[in-house]
Amino acid sequence: MEKLQRNERLAAMLKIMIDAPGKIFNLGSFSDMLGSAKSSLSEDMDILRGTLEKFGLGTIETIPGASGGVRYLSLPGEEKVKTLLNTLSSELSRKERILPGGFLYMLDIIYDPQMVSDLGMVFAEHFLHTEADYVITVETKGIPLAFMTARYLNTPLVIVRHYNEAADGASVNINYISGSSKTIQTMVLPLRSLKRNSRLLFIDDFMKGGGTTRGILELAHEFECEVAGIGVLIQTLKPEKKLVDNYFSILTLKNVNEEEKIIEIEPTGRNREIK
Amino acid sequence: MEKLQRNERLAAMLKIMIDAPGKIFNLGSFSDMLGSAKSSLSEDMDILRGTLEKFGLGTIETIPGASGGVRYLSLPGEEKVKTLLNTLSSELSRKERILPGGFLYMLDIIYDPQMVSDLGMVFAEHFLHTEADYVITVETKGIPLAFMTARYLNTPLVIVRHYNEAADGASVNINYISGSSKTIQTMVLPLRSLKRNSRLLFIDDFMKGGGTTRGILELAHEFECEVAGIGVLIQTLKPEKKLVDNYFSILTLKNVNEEEKIIEIEPTGRNREIK
Repeated sequence: MEKLQRNERLAAMLKIMIDAPGKIFNLGSFSDMLGSAKSSLSEDMDILRGTLEKFGLGTIETIPGASGGVRYLSLPGEEKVKTLLNTLSSELSRKERILPGGFLYMLDIIYDPQMVSDLGMVFAEHFLHTEADYVITVETKGIPLAFMTARYLNTPLVIVRHYNEAADGASVNINYISGSSKTIQTMVLPLRSLKRNSRLLFIDDFMKGGGTTRGILELAHEFECEVAGIGVLIQTLKPEKKLVDNYFSILTLKNVNEEEKIIEIEPTGRNREIK
Repeated sequence: MEKLQRNERLAAMLKIMIDAPGKIFNLGSFSDMLGSAKSSLSEDMDILRGTLEKFGLGTIETIPGASGGVRYLSLPGEEKVKTLLNTLSSELSRKERILPGGFLYMLDIIYDPQMVSDLGMVFAEHFLHTEADYVITVETKGIPLAFMTARYLNTPLVIVRHYNEAADGASVNINYISGSSKTIQTMVLPLRSLKRNSRLLFIDDFMKGGGTTRGILELAHEFECEVAGIGVLIQTLKPEKKLVDNYFSILTLKNVNEEEKIIEIEPTGRNREIK
């Protein structure tokens, strides 16, 4: 193979690392692929790290040791997160979003690939320290968010369903009571979905009473797993007392006034995070 | 702002473009952000394009005209696709995957962020020419695949559900007959989900009889939309005659022999694509 220019090495390695965020790459494998000395590649990593950090585009982390290497982390940076959450709050406050019954239409937001990617980065950054083995969610609306969070954390995704499907084999079923509507609902998860003694990160789009989250805690217990983190895009201000008390929310929906067409929603704020 | 080195410009622009695949960026906006002349940036794009193409990592397309610019396309390349599909076929052929009833366990594959990203690229490349306005899927198992396809095509995602939810406003409901089980099922899509006269790309994980796809065609009709493409990860060999006859499948499941524990699954093959 002809000798590569530094420009080419940088572009190729950056692209490969961004495609697998969180995955650890051995410098030796890049060395084989690009035909360059590890010392040059190490300098390349410094350049990439410096550039990414300068523009708030994430970072490259060096992990020491035999199984070590480098990995790309998609840290969005404080300024970018602030802009994102303000944009999102004002978009979700548009009065055209109010639906009969005081609901808020937000499917266009929570299924939008660009928005979901950015929000997935926010969750991934917040929960990086939990060292979760899986990201788990309940069908349907939180799936894109949970998927992108799993992608940025480099973990598998697990989806809990409301109905049994023969095609997925034996499953664990639990009943739980929805926190807000007080109705009994079912959660189904195939036995093969989770390894026992795993750490789970639960991601969902919305939390009102916290009943679904409570259900996930019970389900995790049946699989002998631990819920190491709970993240929701939007929590409602009321009821203030949820069925779970240790979670991270990105936005807080304070009020929807159907008659006067006013929606109050705002970033929850790191310092106002409910413990 | 201090003047940036070419290395830094390359890394920053590449990262920004990869984060929004398919999105058109004006060179002027990069010029403002990086403080460099457009002519230098244009040379930078040539370097990035050359490097990406050399390693089969996608390309950068230049779009002429007033609303033109550059965009990153995540084309996986023939060699990479071949390796991916062979890996996938042999992984799905493992006899441990056979479930009672002759079903195949594949949740770990269709929810795996890295695998789903790679497959999303395959769909996106195949359907780039359809110029779809939306990617559409039916809950639940195809959602990650459809989401990543939408991300690479830079379109919104739309998820059809099986049950009504008050929180999403007025919806169109249709009944359809499942092609394989012959049971009547319901599809629900909120009215606000789609603009009329749009082009849709339907992505799903599995096609047996084609009943679900037929349902999507009917639903699209109710929204005055056109289905411009149909892509499934796995089609079954039988029944050979599906309820739809113009689709793209990545893998073909030929047989599951529950007694002898043999699974036959292979890449559908571009030349064997059913038209």
